[in-house]
Amino acid sequence: MRNSPIAVFDSGLGGLTVVRELLSELPGEDIIYLGDSARVPWGIRSPETIRRYAMESAGYLMGFAPKMLVVACNTASAAALEELEAWSPVQVVDVIRPSALAAVGCTDKAVGVIGTEATIASGAYQRAIQALDPQREVISAACPLLVPIVEEGRSEQDPIVLHVLGDYLPRLQRRRPGALILGCTHYPLLAGTIGKLMGPDVVLIDSGKSAARQVRRQLQQGELLNPRPEGGRLICYTTDNPQRFSRLSMRFGGRQIDQVTFVGTDQLQLPAGEKIVRS
Amino acid sequence: MRNSPIAVFDSGLGGLTVVRELLSELPGEDIIYLGDSARVPWGIRSPETIRRYAMESAGYLMGFAPKMLVVACNTASAAALEELEAWSPVQVVDVIRPSALAAVGCTDKAVGVIGTEATIASGAYQRAIQALDPQREVISAACPLLVPIVEEGRSEQDPIVLHVLGDYLPRLQRRRPGALILGCTHYPLLAGTIGKLMGPDVVLIDSGKSAARQVRRQLQQGELLNPRPEGGRLICYTTDNPQRFSRLSMRFGGRQIDQVTFVGTDQLQLPAGEKIVRS
Repeated sequence: MRNSPIAVFDSGLGGLTVVRELLSELPGEDIIYLGDSARVPWGIRSPETIRRYAMESAGYLMGFAPKMLVVACNTASAAALEELEAWSPVQVVDVIRPSALAAVGCTDKAVGVIGTEATIASGAYQRAIQALDPQREVISAACPLLVPIVEEGRSEQDPIVLHVLGDYLPRLQRRRPGALILGCTHYPLLAGTIGKLMGPDVVLIDSGKSAARQVRRQLQQGELLNPRPEGGRLICYTTDNPQRFSRLSMRFGGRQIDQVTFVGTDQLQLPAGEKIVRS
Repeated sequence: MRNSPIAVFDSGLGGLTVVRELLSELPGEDIIYLGDSARVPWGIRSPETIRRYAMESAGYLMGFAPKMLVVACNTASAAALEELEAWSPVQVVDVIRPSALAAVGCTDKAVGVIGTEATIASGAYQRAIQALDPQREVISAACPLLVPIVEEGRSEQDPIVLHVLGDYLPRLQRRRPGALILGCTHYPLLAGTIGKLMGPDVVLIDSGKSAARQVRRQLQQGELLNPRPEGGRLICYTTDNPQRFSRLSMRFGGRQIDQVTFVGTDQLQLPAGEKIVRS
């Protein structure tokens, strides 16, 4: 098992910000990544659709016999974690619980959370934080335009980026949280500007970094760390255009990824016996 | 056939702006609408994925034995029209050729086009306009943020809407086109502000209005108009949450649509014998 890969899935390219942290934290591990770019973004969809897409992605990745499953997508972590854990034959690490742990650990003040419409509407961060500290105040804000803004390729200094952040963040700023969770894989690309707008007293929590540390902890506990100190391989699959995936990989993953394989969404199937119930 | 419905499909809710024009132009016709909200937006996807989704939607709608197929989505019209026409047993009306006709007919000056990344990258508007007038100058601009901005529910007067339009439109304004095609179903919701920014000398072409007129012309020519002067029914299907569809129907379609039925994307299948070739 120690030589088996870590399977990671996301709604698209954003999860590469999590992969980047995994590679930095665990350079010896092999990683299989699936980005469902043909159906991105998941953050605007209903919980049952997100659950179906997440289970299909996870089901596909189990074909690679991984030692661990990482849900790199905040939206999927919020909507589908219970189903994934009930079904998965291997440990599941999401991006929400590790971020909640990091936030509760670094401040006694309120915790702010920004994320997609679906992530914030789910209340998953609030539940994860209050599971650790029931009295903790949680201040959430959905920021639907940030994903398309990052996908459009705008820089952090772009006036429209500043304007949109200036529209979303003041409600959070006024409540003076001690930490702000960047609850979407795309947001680390805007961390510099978000940090400046929130001010030096607010610790930014990168959900990818928190998840990577959690992966290390669980692999260590299970004696599943790959003995190789470095040289892990990254193998990527996408449900849409592999060329576009390669082109944008530097932006999200911090490296040029040339080996990307197309897999049709019709090849992703719900694991046998699973039925997504409409809530 | 005259009593058969008109089938309309779109990547999501945006096509309801086309339905609104159809209902106003042809109040006696029955309309079956399919919005693929579980995979919206199509405008950021690769041509082969868009073609597959379009063929799946069209294949599903053929089950209702319609007398005509309307491609309400500009992105699908740009990427999949050839495949749809080659396959469809009934006439296909798209939103691009009627808009090109309207634009060429209303001005002798250059024609501007705004649309999604995929629509503009396809060059479909340029080809449609120059098929009618080979010398005509066409000025195009992709405006990726406008769809998420409209979907977020921002009003036309919202400062961020003004800022984003002020970022996209100046290049077009400087070239002084005689007409500007609103080449995406969402853009009519911003027409007031776009019109003000472009100035009174620029005629705005609403692709939904142009398509509705084209539908009427073709039904008349084929003697397929429903003899009923009014009282047509609208039946809607969506691949995501029907409640969300109903909630947003007023905004896009100008009416509250309560009868919306869920259909899973797994029930949409490529028509038998069709294979989408990756280009």
